[in-house]
Amino acid sequence: MGLRKALRLYVITARGDREEVRRVREALEGGATSIQLRAKSVTAREAYLAGREIRKLTREYGALFFVDDRIDLAIALDADGVQLGPGDIPIEVAKNVAPNLIVGASVYSVDEALKAEELGADYLGAGAVFSTPTKPEARILGLGGLREVVKRVSIPVVAIGGITQENAGEVMKTGVDGVAVISTVMCAPDVKKATQELKNVVGGV
Amino acid sequence: MGLRKALRLYVITARGDREEVRRVREALEGGATSIQLRAKSVTAREAYLAGREIRKLTREYGALFFVDDRIDLAIALDADGVQLGPGDIPIEVAKNVAPNLIVGASVYSVDEALKAEELGADYLGAGAVFSTPTKPEARILGLGGLREVVKRVSIPVVAIGGITQENAGEVMKTGVDGVAVISTVMCAPDVKKATQELKNVVGGV
Ligand code: NI
Repeated sequence: MGLRKALRLYVITARGDREEVRRVREALEGGATSIQLRAKSVTAREAYLAGREIRKLTREYGALFFVDDRIDLAIALDADGVQLGPGDIPIEVAKNVAPNLIVGASVYSVDEALKAEELGADYLGAGAVFSTPTKPEARILGLGGLREVVKRVSIPVVAIGGITQENAGEVMKTGVDGVAVISTVMCAPDVKKATQELKNVVGGV
Repeated sequence: MGLRKALRLYVITARGDREEVRRVREALEGGATSIQLRAKSVTAREAYLAGREIRKLTREYGALFFVDDRIDLAIALDADGVQLGPGDIPIEVAKNVAPNLIVGASVYSVDEALKAEELGADYLGAGAVFSTPTKPEARILGLGGLREVVKRVSIPVVAIGGITQENAGEVMKTGVDGVAVISTVMCAPDVKKATQELKNVVGGV
């Protein structure tokens, strides 16, 4: 699957431990096109062990596999890419360290989006579209800001932050390539069903 | 400088931010033979920026430069090595990801020491020798355990945990290649003087 298509329904882990792997499988069954291993509160060792299983599953389902923040984990897990934010190793350094990884940049403004594209990011995770309990401190880009980002950059854009089955339709109308979610899918009582419902809204293969 | 000699006086940063770089220089002036960038409470970006300066300084003073936990930062900073603990990416995986890095393993028992050597660690950071306010949760290996580790492994060993100018002499008598310190040097009112005093006890070039 090409990068743009793989960004259509981008599901991010809530904890990144091995117990969450079962939910990752359900998300893939429901139609997730990419999985990101985000492991803020477990050790790198635990994330590595979970990541090995997620790498196998994403291959099995033809989805892309990304790792949040850690280039070393991404390399160790043979991930397709890494997602870097303002507090992480700089994009241009990441490109040198791991030239084969897809490098996504988390951006929170139009200026940051333009800067990240200039530094060599392969795609943008742009947000927050709406406020979200998972990342309450995130700056709000909003639908208008998102539309502006899409207009100004030529690399693929995935929208993130507070996206649900209810608002995903208007998010897609901004021209983004897809939506990224954490809790909407990973914390749903039925992960597969939640993913399918979102997939019905955003479309794609 | 060879690895064994470089482990003689191994100084670890307390915070790993740019403000600490001045103290790192003073430690090098005082005779530190290795510096480890340990950055548990700053972002990877901040650690990267501090690390670039530490890399320059260690070259200038002929010391080795290690990074704690993060293989990606070690690669990005062209460090000589990385130090990995039980919660980090496994040693054998690190060796695959970065075959040119010296890989040190943090071990807290004789069993862990033997295991780490078997998995390919290039040196051991063994401790805690004594209890320490910087890592109050660390398991105590003690002088006896340290002596046992030195006897049972053939790779270099640096002792860590609660080491001061007062007890460094008895620590060296266990046969270790050197001592590693954080607060004894980095939190001293006069970093250079504290390093020199320790250097007088442990000897070496
Ligand atoms: Ni991040």
